[in-house]
Amino acid sequence: MPIQTIKWNRNKVKLIDQTELPNRLKYVYCRDVKSIWNAIRALKVRGAPAIGIAGALGVVLGIRESRASHYKEFEIELRKVTGYLAKSRPTAVNLFWALERMERVSCENSNKKIYEIKALLLKEALKIIEEDKEVSRKMAEYGVRLLNNGDTVLTHCNAGGLATADYGTALGVIYKAKEMGKKIKVYADETRPLLQGSRLTAWELMKNGIDVTLICDNMAAEVMKEGRIAHVFVGADRIAANGDTANKIGTYGVALLARAHNIPFYVVAPVSTFDLTLKSGDGIPIEERGRDEIIAIFGTRTAPRNVKVYNPAFDVTPARLITAIVTEKGILRPPYKRSIKQMVKI
Amino acid sequence: MPIQTIKWNRNKVKLIDQTELPNRLKYVYCRDVKSIWNAIRALKVRGAPAIGIAGALGVVLGIRESRASHYKEFEIELRKVTGYLAKSRPTAVNLFWALERMERVSCENSNKKIYEIKALLLKEALKIIEEDKEVSRKMAEYGVRLLNNGDTVLTHCNAGGLATADYGTALGVIYKAKEMGKKIKVYADETRPLLQGSRLTAWELMKNGIDVTLICDNMAAEVMKEGRIAHVFVGADRIAANGDTANKIGTYGVALLARAHNIPFYVVAPVSTFDLTLKSGDGIPIEERGRDEIIAIFGTRTAPRNVKVYNPAFDVTPARLITAIVTEKGILRPPYKRSIKQMVKI
Repeated sequence: MPIQTIKWNRNKVKLIDQTELPNRLKYVYCRDVKSIWNAIRALKVRGAPAIGIAGALGVVLGIRESRASHYKEFEIELRKVTGYLAKSRPTAVNLFWALERMERVSCENSNKKIYEIKALLLKEALKIIEEDKEVSRKMAEYGVRLLNNGDTVLTHCNAGGLATADYGTALGVIYKAKEMGKKIKVYADETRPLLQGSRLTAWELMKNGIDVTLICDNMAAEVMKEGRIAHVFVGADRIAANGDTANKIGTYGVALLARAHNIPFYVVAPVSTFDLTLKSGDGIPIEERGRDEIIAIFGTRTAPRNVKVYNPAFDVTPARLITAIVTEKGILRPPYKRSIKQMVKI
Repeated sequence: MPIQTIKWNRNKVKLIDQTELPNRLKYVYCRDVKSIWNAIRALKVRGAPAIGIAGALGVVLGIRESRASHYKEFEIELRKVTGYLAKSRPTAVNLFWALERMERVSCENSNKKIYEIKALLLKEALKIIEEDKEVSRKMAEYGVRLLNNGDTVLTHCNAGGLATADYGTALGVIYKAKEMGKKIKVYADETRPLLQGSRLTAWELMKNGIDVTLICDNMAAEVMKEGRIAHVFVGADRIAANGDTANKIGTYGVALLARAHNIPFYVVAPVSTFDLTLKSGDGIPIEERGRDEIIAIFGTRTAPRNVKVYNPAFDVTPARLITAIVTEKGILRPPYKRSIKQMVKI
């Protein structure tokens, strides 16, 4: 059932070009680090866990041609590659987490031959993919406990199979519920400007036989007021030590609306999404993207050419609006400073 | 400065086809009631006051070919025309208000000759246009008292010159402030699905030299959190006797977000927008529009073809979220039940 969003395929990275969905299911093959960088930047691959995987595989591609004869030389090349990939997108911490894992493997094996280190780096990238699958399943197992048969869930952006190597984060919970025979309906925010909700979430939920209703972002409040929503489930791009959560722009607004209607608001994210170097969400860098995303849709201009725009790609939902955070290590409850610290110790 | 959204022009109704903006400023000419009905239904003309004007002019077109020889016959024809026009759009009450005015003029002059009644109906429609201009100016004069030099305002949908015969409702306040030398900046929600914010509001504000920044609807919460917004100003399609206000879908969400950030939320609407037959907003009929508005943008499909959609065109903001309502008779404050009753008496 899971979608093969990104995989290692005969010495290349094979990934779904998500910018072409839902009109075309097109795969692209990346043979070098630059094409991975471009795929991340252009959102051909997106979703925090999937970006992490793309980053790890990008390292493999980036160093495989290395002719370094000794470790120091190799390490300089490796750091050039990771530094380059780190600049593709700033907000999702899973990218930096994956790049650090790759650097650590290299460092810990600095006594080995270069070709051996290269092989270990590939092994590590594949391990990250395998772990992501397991983590998806475990999050879903915890998260499904929050759902009752017949519930309707609102979600924002795409936190599904297309955002990970498997089931997804927020949508993984829905898929698990379906496997268990629970009937769950979903309202999907279309998620402007890039329409990940209508293009990706609606597409993958329908593909997996889930009852999904598409709405514009500004309809979420009305849908909640009409009593149609039991829970909100979203993913995350970075979670600070106090539980403040960066996610796709609009998430913060949805959290405020959920609070106003007494609807529980859940974040589903792997431990790799937590950034404990940040005390609060204030330190999370928010990517600002280009004006074309707002003044044109699929090439058709929808606003005056010269209008000023503001296009933050993410926002931060303060911990106080989050009912619980579902991870592969269990369900975290407030106060998050304490529950996050405890989780890390496990 | 005002835009000639709709006018009576040599025996025809001349109106801007707002579905073509901002890419083309195209006028259409309506010579019969059916083309008026279609223009309203297809949103070529939109905005509560402008719909009222279109309805009144539609009556003129609908009865001018009448060959009725006596009043009873004429009245039957007239009621057929008003009944037909009343079915073009259900939510904005200004349409029904204008149609009733036209019926009343006919009724009060039932002793006159048919050609005289026809002339009086045209006179009444033109009077509605003239009144709308005056009303716009008066609302702006009251509303501008709420603005300080240097303020930044958030607005939703289009409550500007394109929605009325003159200045607009919410945007009229901005134009008035500019005339008085106050520097006001505006953030405009793009307002999905039909993008009245990006297509119309951004266009007319730029045309009038107002500093406008376009955002997607789901960015409003972040923009408020960043402290960029001093006030929210919106228009209205129908206001119940208790102050509950129907307006473009998304308005209710903006009102909740404004409340969460302690930002005043103002409605600007003429007295013709009040429907005192309704005790509360629960009785306001909410138009549900077609799926194509959500799954495609300007003909390009943005979602899976068969996805379910929910497309309410309006929502109701409860009176408790509204800081004040600006009318041509003054600024109404809570409790609205009382202040609205008092205003009607004036």
